[in-house]
Amino acid sequence: MDEQLSRKILAAVDEGFEEQIAFTEELIRFPSLRGEEKPAQDFVHKALVERGYDVRTFRIDEDKIRDHPGFSPVAVDYADAVNVVATHQPRAEKGKSLILNGHMDVVPEGPHDMWEVSPPYEPKRVGDWLYGRGGGDMKAGIAANIFALDALRRIGLQPAARVHVQSVVEEECTGNGALACLVEGYTADAAIIPEPEDEMLVRANCGVLWFEVHVAGHPVHVREAGTGANAIEASFRVIESLKRLTADWNGQKANYPYFAELDHPINFNVGKIEGGDWASTVAAWCKVSCRIAIYPGDDPKERAAEIEAHLAHELADDPFLGNRPPQVTWNGFFARGYVLEEGGDAEAALAEAHRRATASELQSFVTPGYLDARVFVIYAGMPCLVYGPITENIHGFDERVSLSSIKRVTGSIALFIADWCGIEPIEAGDG
Amino acid sequence: MDEQLSRKILAAVDEGFEEQIAFTEELIRFPSLRGEEKPAQDFVHKALVERGYDVRTFRIDEDKIRDHPGFSPVAVDYADAVNVVATHQPRAEKGKSLILNGHMDVVPEGPHDMWEVSPPYEPKRVGDWLYGRGGGDMKAGIAANIFALDALRRIGLQPAARVHVQSVVEEECTGNGALACLVEGYTADAAIIPEPEDEMLVRANCGVLWFEVHVAGHPVHVREAGTGANAIEASFRVIESLKRLTADWNGQKANYPYFAELDHPINFNVGKIEGGDWASTVAAWCKVSCRIAIYPGDDPKERAAEIEAHLAHELADDPFLGNRPPQVTWNGFFARGYVLEEGGDAEAALAEAHRRATASELQSFVTPGYLDARVFVIYAGMPCLVYGPITENIHGFDERVSLSSIKRVTGSIALFIADWCGIEPIEAGDG
Repeated sequence: MDEQLSRKILAAVDEGFEEQIAFTEELIRFPSLRGEEKPAQDFVHKALVERGYDVRTFRIDEDKIRDHPGFSPVAVDYADAVNVVATHQPRAEKGKSLILNGHMDVVPEGPHDMWEVSPPYEPKRVGDWLYGRGGGDMKAGIAANIFALDALRRIGLQPAARVHVQSVVEEECTGNGALACLVEGYTADAAIIPEPEDEMLVRANCGVLWFEVHVAGHPVHVREAGTGANAIEASFRVIESLKRLTADWNGQKANYPYFAELDHPINFNVGKIEGGDWASTVAAWCKVSCRIAIYPGDDPKERAAEIEAHLAHELADDPFLGNRPPQVTWNGFFARGYVLEEGGDAEAALAEAHRRATASELQSFVTPGYLDARVFVIYAGMPCLVYGPITENIHGFDERVSLSSIKRVTGSIALFIADWCGIEPIEAGDG
Repeated sequence: MDEQLSRKILAAVDEGFEEQIAFTEELIRFPSLRGEEKPAQDFVHKALVERGYDVRTFRIDEDKIRDHPGFSPVAVDYADAVNVVATHQPRAEKGKSLILNGHMDVVPEGPHDMWEVSPPYEPKRVGDWLYGRGGGDMKAGIAANIFALDALRRIGLQPAARVHVQSVVEEECTGNGALACLVEGYTADAAIIPEPEDEMLVRANCGVLWFEVHVAGHPVHVREAGTGANAIEASFRVIESLKRLTADWNGQKANYPYFAELDHPINFNVGKIEGGDWASTVAAWCKVSCRIAIYPGDDPKERAAEIEAHLAHELADDPFLGNRPPQVTWNGFFARGYVLEEGGDAEAALAEAHRRATASELQSFVTPGYLDARVFVIYAGMPCLVYGPITENIHGFDERVSLSSIKRVTGSIALFIADWCGIEPIEAGDG
């Protein structure tokens, strides 16, 4: 790509940037928590229709994906779980096709009084930061995908290859949203997901398992506390046991390329707990929601069986749990990790686009978190480039995304599209 | 009391027993959980009016009791928190006056699938047992109070002294119900509370403190778990610290008459926990509802301050809690323990009644649980006899009370009334 076109594209990104951030703010205003993504998805559907794309919104059909090896168990109703996919068809297919993917679901914002800059769903710009739940993870990325294409359009150009813009759900709990898109038949020569990755390319990530541990027993009046096992305290012993398993798994990191260098690749998290009914009653039940990572190449089924066997073995002699083993339910992520093999065309194209947009070299890194990229890489053999803006506090209070970083990343994506897909002038009647 | 009258009274208890158990079953059918006692109280009000008593139902007025030294902090709305007090006035005050007290509130029943014999609010008789939440603790006792008086009436007698039948609320969380009755001016020469005490007399009990510990911090995505302190795990450290305090307090038992012989007089309980929002987010907050006992003579204020100082001291160097000390809220019981001094008239009268009704000697014991008796003993200088039927699993699943024991206890109470208050024949126009 010549230097002049490159500069023209970046200038077009700059020109549309205020509109892009306003759009991002609109997205943040939707509290698109799990099960409540539909209004935000409808908003994106409309925005894509207005741009002339062929847009399709479809519900995740559990029956269609249940037997796919990438499926994760579903603990909620999918009645309102819809994906949006916009398709651009060029006049003549000259370049390579592309999927621009992002997820609309956000994680719960927690107690509002812990948000110090602005309430979670009221976006606010302060200096270079845009605050709001889901701003970085990843509504800025969804907007970047759309506005990268808009930038080309602003200078009379469009991709000379098929492009799908996807806004999916379920990235924060199962990955079934991206999976459903794949099962619907959407594939391409590459995919980009602008997740909050500090302007670096994700080389590899962990898989993730979600599970709930349910401890239940017979409560008594606290005056007889010695005779009743407290389910809350028993849950603590379950957690301690799982932390020992986590240490074991971290000890295996040398067997996994890219992960040996990480300090602590396998993170275990107890994210939610609920138990007992009354301060003066020995707790009869306790439920703990857990998340643990697995290495790329690990089979979720085998690792899940290992967790169950570990708990059964370690807790066999527990005074309470020995008689009433904790029940483990797999209620979300049951997902493999992936490795993006080095040296592919797509990566080379992104490196060049990044160099032009940011005047720096593209770095790659390994992240111990889940990414929908595993769907594209493992089950469609596609290169998937996870690369997005600088953020802080994703999943936390005062989540924020860097405005200047959003602009750089949008520029990179726009340049990548032009290079990867090729370009053709827009003519009257192009959609 | 002559043997013949004694036998006549016991026969009258026997005669009314089927009706008494049907009445107890009606009470069990009301899920009179905290804040939901009113329908059950209305039912009792009506039953007492039908018997001709002067009955008064009144709301607990927080403003009237707040400055009383026996007051416990209130965390809920008292709009529907009503006490019922029925008053019997004799034609001529010949004997000693009496309060027959019981509490209508029950503790939460927990998951229904853990109830194996019958759903919690569907009473069921199996052999000598009557099953149901609150049957033993203490709807059988409320019914025993009422039907002991009914037994006298059945043979044409009534107490020759003022008697109040009280059905109170808030016994399971603050003790403010009994306290409100006292503040309204209800006192007498003695009180009986037929709590589930295995047909023994309570010699002394513990005071109780309730508190909630709230831990809050800054969450992060679990991929950065090392940098975010998990509030759920931090709560476990709070609980471990409180268990060390409990061990210290148990070590002080030799200083307290009646408590040195108990194996473990000070029980600490974590009865309820709630924390975090999402499996893949490091938990930002966690709330733990706790209960701990104190010795009779201990000042709740001093013991509460000791708990706060203990946590502040022990957790000062905690990696998470050191910077963000847990917040302790006193949200219920703030109640002293009591000792029933040995050798009083009321105890002697109960011992005699018990001997006649059960053909065995009255035993006394020390219990490490809260009792409303502290209100009568400490703040009104009244002897209060806590003495009630044999039960199992109070506060647990399949709570049950012994039918034959209810009958024996009702007989004891009827004989006690006849002896303590004296008797007079009922005449036309007596209420």
